[in-house]
Amino acid sequence: MIDRYSRPELRALWSDQRRFDTWLAVELAACEAMEGEGTVPAGTAARVRERAMGKLSGPRILEIEERTRHDVIAFLTHVEELAGEDARFLHLGMTSSDVLDSSLALLLCAATDEILGGLDLLLAALARRAEEHRNTPLMGRSHGIHAEPVTLGLVFAGFFAEMSRNRRRLERARETIAVGKIAGAVGTYANVSPKVEAQALASLGLRPETVATQIVARDRHAELFDALALLGAGVERIALQVRHWQRTEVGEAEEAFGKGQKGSSAMPHKKNPILSENLCGLARLLRSYAVAALEDVALWHERDISQSSVERVIAPDATALADFMLRRAAGLVGGLVVHPERMRKNLELTGGLIFSEGVMLALVRSGLPRQRAYELVQRSALRARDEGGEFRALLAADPEVASRLDRQTLDACFDLQHHLRHLDTIFRRAFQGGPA
Amino acid sequence: MIDRYSRPELRALWSDQRRFDTWLAVELAACEAMEGEGTVPAGTAARVRERAMGKLSGPRILEIEERTRHDVIAFLTHVEELAGEDARFLHLGMTSSDVLDSSLALLLCAATDEILGGLDLLLAALARRAEEHRNTPLMGRSHGIHAEPVTLGLVFAGFFAEMSRNRRRLERARETIAVGKIAGAVGTYANVSPKVEAQALASLGLRPETVATQIVARDRHAELFDALALLGAGVERIALQVRHWQRTEVGEAEEAFGKGQKGSSAMPHKKNPILSENLCGLARLLRSYAVAALEDVALWHERDISQSSVERVIAPDATALADFMLRRAAGLVGGLVVHPERMRKNLELTGGLIFSEGVMLALVRSGLPRQRAYELVQRSALRARDEGGEFRALLAADPEVASRLDRQTLDACFDLQHHLRHLDTIFRRAFQGGPA
Amino acid sequence: MIDRYSRPELRALWSDQRRFDTWLAVELAACEAMEGEGTVPAGTAARVRERAMGKLSGPRILEIEERTRHDVIAFLTHVEELAGEDARFLHLGMTSSDVLDSSLALLLCAATDEILGGLDLLLAALARRAEEHRNTPLMGRSHGIHAEPVTLGLVFAGFFAEMSRNRRRLERARETIAVGKIAGAVGTYANVSPKVEAQALASLGLRPETVATQIVARDRHAELFDALALLGAGVERIALQVRHWQRTEVGEAEEAFGKGQKGSSAMPHKKNPILSENLCGLARLLRSYAVAALEDVALWHERDISQSSVERVIAPDATALADFMLRRAAGLVGGLVVHPERMRKNLELTGGLIFSEGVMLALVRSGLPRQRAYELVQRSALRARDEGGEFRALLAADPEVASRLDRQTLDACFDLQHHLRHLDTIFRRAFQGGPA
Amino acid sequence: MIDRYSRPELRALWSDQRRFDTWLAVELAACEAMEGEGTVPAGTAARVRERAMGKLSGPRILEIEERTRHDVIAFLTHVEELAGEDARFLHLGMTSSDVLDSSLALLLCAATDEILGGLDLLLAALARRAEEHRNTPLMGRSHGIHAEPVTLGLVFAGFFAEMSRNRRRLERARETIAVGKIAGAVGTYANVSPKVEAQALASLGLRPETVATQIVARDRHAELFDALALLGAGVERIALQVRHWQRTEVGEAEEAFGKGQKGSSAMPHKKNPILSENLCGLARLLRSYAVAALEDVALWHERDISQSSVERVIAPDATALADFMLRRAAGLVGGLVVHPERMRKNLELTGGLIFSEGVMLALVRSGLPRQRAYELVQRSALRARDEGGEFRALLAADPEVASRLDRQTLDACFDLQHHLRHLDTIFRRAFQGGPA
Repeated sequence: MIDRYSRPELRALWSDQRRFDTWLAVELAACEAMEGEGTVPAGTAARVRERAMGKLSGPRILEIEERTRHDVIAFLTHVEELAGEDARFLHLGMTSSDVLDSSLALLLCAATDEILGGLDLLLAALARRAEEHRNTPLMGRSHGIHAEPVTLGLVFAGFFAEMSRNRRRLERARETIAVGKIAGAVGTYANVSPKVEAQALASLGLRPETVATQIVARDRHAELFDALALLGAGVERIALQVRHWQRTEVGEAEEAFGKGQKGSSAMPHKKNPILSENLCGLARLLRSYAVAALEDVALWHERDISQSSVERVIAPDATALADFMLRRAAGLVGGLVVHPERMRKNLELTGGLIFSEGVMLALVRSGLPRQRAYELVQRSALRARDEGGEFRALLAADPEVASRLDRQTLDACFDLQHHLRHLDTIFRRAFQGGPA
Repeated sequence: MIDRYSRPELRALWSDQRRFDTWLAVELAACEAMEGEGTVPAGTAARVRERAMGKLSGPRILEIEERTRHDVIAFLTHVEELAGEDARFLHLGMTSSDVLDSSLALLLCAATDEILGGLDLLLAALARRAEEHRNTPLMGRSHGIHAEPVTLGLVFAGFFAEMSRNRRRLERARETIAVGKIAGAVGTYANVSPKVEAQALASLGLRPETVATQIVARDRHAELFDALALLGAGVERIALQVRHWQRTEVGEAEEAFGKGQKGSSAMPHKKNPILSENLCGLARLLRSYAVAALEDVALWHERDISQSSVERVIAPDATALADFMLRRAAGLVGGLVVHPERMRKNLELTGGLIFSEGVMLALVRSGLPRQRAYELVQRSALRARDEGGEFRALLAADPEVASRLDRQTLDACFDLQHHLRHLDTIFRRAFQGGPA
Repeated sequence: MIDRYSRPELRALWSDQRRFDTWLAVELAACEAMEGEGTVPAGTAARVRERAMGKLSGPRILEIEERTRHDVIAFLTHVEELAGEDARFLHLGMTSSDVLDSSLALLLCAATDEILGGLDLLLAALARRAEEHRNTPLMGRSHGIHAEPVTLGLVFAGFFAEMSRNRRRLERARETIAVGKIAGAVGTYANVSPKVEAQALASLGLRPETVATQIVARDRHAELFDALALLGAGVERIALQVRHWQRTEVGEAEEAFGKGQKGSSAMPHKKNPILSENLCGLARLLRSYAVAALEDVALWHERDISQSSVERVIAPDATALADFMLRRAAGLVGGLVVHPERMRKNLELTGGLIFSEGVMLALVRSGLPRQRAYELVQRSALRARDEGGEFRALLAADPEVASRLDRQTLDACFDLQHHLRHLDTIFRRAFQGGPA
Repeated sequence: MIDRYSRPELRALWSDQRRFDTWLAVELAACEAMEGEGTVPAGTAARVRERAMGKLSGPRILEIEERTRHDVIAFLTHVEELAGEDARFLHLGMTSSDVLDSSLALLLCAATDEILGGLDLLLAALARRAEEHRNTPLMGRSHGIHAEPVTLGLVFAGFFAEMSRNRRRLERARETIAVGKIAGAVGTYANVSPKVEAQALASLGLRPETVATQIVARDRHAELFDALALLGAGVERIALQVRHWQRTEVGEAEEAFGKGQKGSSAMPHKKNPILSENLCGLARLLRSYAVAALEDVALWHERDISQSSVERVIAPDATALADFMLRRAAGLVGGLVVHPERMRKNLELTGGLIFSEGVMLALVRSGLPRQRAYELVQRSALRARDEGGEFRALLAADPEVASRLDRQTLDACFDLQHHLRHLDTIFRRAFQGGPA
């Protein structure tokens, strides 16, 4: 997790301090549940909380870990330093993973909530720009080649729909990982009771793992990292679109350019889509973390600890990046400078070629077989394209076409509004819900 | 997709023949919907269906494609060869992707149904073996080291729970990809109506894409390939477990060994867990396909066709492999030869060391601070381990321990049944549902 | 490996027939070496060769494998069916992996040779087009934004240099995998001698594994798949460039469009860069295979067989795809239709803005601090860009600029040839070697 | 890069301070070369060096970047603050990437040198342990099943050979990335000369990019990350071996266990192979970074900046992890506690079954067809395995075997030394070189 690509909120969330506090919160939740059960003297958790919560020293714990080479034991030793005698009632019948996995779930849930917040910002920006440009005509392109017209709002609506799907994936993944475990060494409740687990986890906002081993199953976490990778790919799609729009030859939209911002150290004329390019790169990182997470699923027997080092890196890195990307993407979309006149100009670039399908269909309706109609239209189209003539004029001058389509019918084929008459239907689908 | 790792059903599903038939089914569904709308003469679809369905020649279509270099146009040309004049009413206002993506959705749904069938076989086998061995004691291991006892049934229950989660992921992914599109060149319904799309897709069992571009959004497909990768990792976890059990030194369970089967060309004594190893390898392939699918999401503008070549390979390969793996895994689990006596023998291998936690907790309950209790127990444990003594006897001989735990209390710590008293709770959670 | 993306040569190379013939070749090479050593009767190999080579029946072997569930034993049984008594001298002291891994090395070397052939076609096409367009001016772009001029030939030269590096990587990977093993069950030569191995492998064109386990180490194979992934990424870079050139708004170059080819089923005007898009997709597949290959390296003990299923898929698929991609790329580059006039037109699109760096440097040379010079130039540049003026005129009209640069100095900054004066140096480096 | 998995040396190498110092070193090298050429006043570089080198303030540069949103321009502005007037002669005719990419090459080379240092520590440890245990008999296992004997030294020798290959890959990758670029905005030397570049880079220990665009080609960097992923997989293979040896049932070797170290918070008896498990996890991370690096190769036109964010993360993270892993692996191997007596005990676990191949070969030499010999041996082997008899006795009691092998011949088949007689040949190959 590097400062450049993370918000302070996420850095705090993944700090040593927050981690140790979360461990303590889990221990205390379990301790309280045991008090309820009568296996631990009433008031123990409250006393430990008062003496230790917020007072844990990360460096001291690491110092002890140097010797014990075991992080949770080091933590417990330090809690005992702070809280004294009472501390011996912590962790009773528990194993390190009870603390670690329940804590990881809490931290991942908190991180996911931040990400969902960022996602909502992006959704809001997309919705706003979609509405704003619902009727701004834009060249639709397939293969990078002019196809038929769309509107700018429609593009944003499409991004909104994809991001709505990503929201649902993320919500589901959050539910999948909101699972803790206080079930002892191999998940059998040998020295702790399911009731204690149920109560302790509920107080933390978690559910018990269905069948735990020593740990919570790692397919849960992999689902989250997959959801983040998909989310990143969705952001990449938006960013890629902006990069295309901002190309010198296209010029249809561009990133807001800050006062004082410089595009190039060598070329003072440049304004580059660097935010979008950055987002494309970060999406690659999210993809790569998902690969590592998938390799973490098949652990040995009741667990091995190989997934731990992976998670120490990718849990903070992937969530912080996703959070950062969404807020950057929201700003990008919200601030995007749009050039409708350039869009209009580009629409006209091919002299009407983009309406070729309508002409072909009119010829079919006039009774021509489809393949013949296709050839007729392609003939004029390629001539217009290669020899520079005006497509509509060439069609009108083609006796075979003219014999079948009168001037009015031909003109109707070139009507932009005809292309856009079903926009409202699509917008309703995108913004008024129904199953995605 | 290679024969060795695919069932004939899946090979048929991904054959040229089936693909072209599916294309025709989509064209006919659209044509029928247009008939209902009145834009195409009634009876057209019925006549084309009679003349072409089941009669399409894959080689002929490929021959035409050699010239047109466009697969759907080649297909339509061939349909016209078979069905004559009526064929010109096919594909009206549609673009190739309308056919291709709706067909891909149909094929992926069909493939997913096969996979779900395989998954149910595996779930059934896991449930059966879990019940059968609910109370078969087994050494629980973390880090590959003996930890505390579990039962064999509990391990199967854990796999069952993970596979149940995979089932839900797969069901959701199936819903996500059950989406087609008949919306024309750039998804605007420029020359086809949303009503036609809705009716045609409904008749095929699909929903319309929320906001289409030229194509259906590729995050949908990536979600499926991610679900398959996770499923594969779950199978890998089972297979890895079998490989560990079958190790010569462990010997707790082994793959059924066919009559006439040979383990090694050089070493006649060998019986190797080759099915399980095979499944571990195949899981790597499913992971790798998910990587490629994630790169397919961010396409250019209203679409580029770079995802097509990827899907031509991974759609058949990933689904056929997943289907194959599940059925192989179901057979593996169902036929697994279990050696309970060896499990029992391994449980006793460390002379009771695996009960050390209970002793420590008894010491804590007797009033010792946790860290001191830990040290006391570790002292006898390491001595037993390194000098070969019997753990329980060493503890009884340790005056500090003996002063705190009488014989009866110490004996209770070594009671296996104590460890397994909460199994029913866990089994209820795994097999009687509630949220996973 | 699908027909659409593979050449017949590669399909033959990875056929069952070829595989079994290669196994037999390895067995015979070992047998001959043993004859030389005197442990096998002279003439054995010759007799078996005569009776079995070219006569092996794949289906029969698979039939036997159904029963033995061991492919090499099935093969040997079939050889015995064909060659009779002599066959018992085959495979003496050998293990299956001796045959399998030596054969895999032979097949991978043969496949790599095909790939190298394709790579040379691509290198030749790149060299030819580089020379042809050495001086064809082309807009250089960074971030998709016009930067400063290059030439089309320079772009090709850059691709040539990258592909030359890929050639070296592939040559090295070929050397790395040209390693076999005839060392018995766990690589100790327990029942076969190092001399036999050395002689047999040499006759096949292979070296012995330095330290074998039961198998040849898999880092060797992963190196090859990594080299293929890198090669694919290099092809992707070329293909991506073509896709950008062919964009409607850019129009600087385009894929050759076959007679009769159709771009879109709906839009007769379209000519799409489908070969290039296809290559971009295939590059993703090569990347994904490399991921799986890297997971194959860390096998258990003297080997486990989990890598086998992976290799059965990716060895044919990755090599066939790479071979196919290179030949497609060579055709793409060789046939690329270039529009120098459009390149020239695009160069002028920004009215000289692309020469801004030269102006800035002239201002620095006149004594201005760099940052001040930058601001002066950016002022006119952004005005030209946003208000449409002509950059050179705006500069000339800026008193602060005019006071420092006279007309002649200013004009020199806008000289295209100045930008290209070092081309020959670069071309020498690219085509006349030296270390890459 | 997290503290837990990186050495201070690597953290310093990738600090802001070091990065800015390296940028300045590149600027000064170019400036000196321009002085030599006469385009910059003599002594400029020396004066700037004195005033700025070692005095750059990272926070101040980031502060300026807030405004310019361009890191190199912010850096140059700060240098001008420190060095005054002379600073305007820096960066003449250069573009940001000239500085960034040349600096990245320097940092990656320095990081690679650290990694090579760690690799040499690991190689030395492997060589030492290989020699120490050249003749320590160890069960060889394939599929996790006992196969035939090897020695512990042979296993280390195999790791040594693989790590030697990784060393060569890393050396080559270092050479591949030891490439800088001072060629201006699009690599054409529009405002800087190839001579300046050659001299400046040579003084820094770099070569010029063969054909640069705005940047150095990214296949170079991907080769390095691939080499690190392969290196990581090699470490994983070693670590996986240790994890298997340390299993409770195997017990042949174990990680050194520090004084005061604790294995489990719940189970005082445990000693877990946590270093090895940790290394297995870190290998997954190295693999995942290679995936991202491969996606960085195909950039747009003369460059886009999407690779930058990826490299900001993976260049430090991958190199620091690799460096850390090698030193941890060297310690692991060097300190590994070996239990030869347990190895010997395990060798005898199957009652001689592991010598079955020798018996089969003796039977073949006696005139039996191979398949018949195989069946004869398998018969006794499976009986010994399943019914618990002693393999050699069962063979001796089998009339068909006894009629062909006398007691002496049979005994010779069970001779361990026979298996190990070619060890010296293998060791020579591993440690006295020749091509790997």
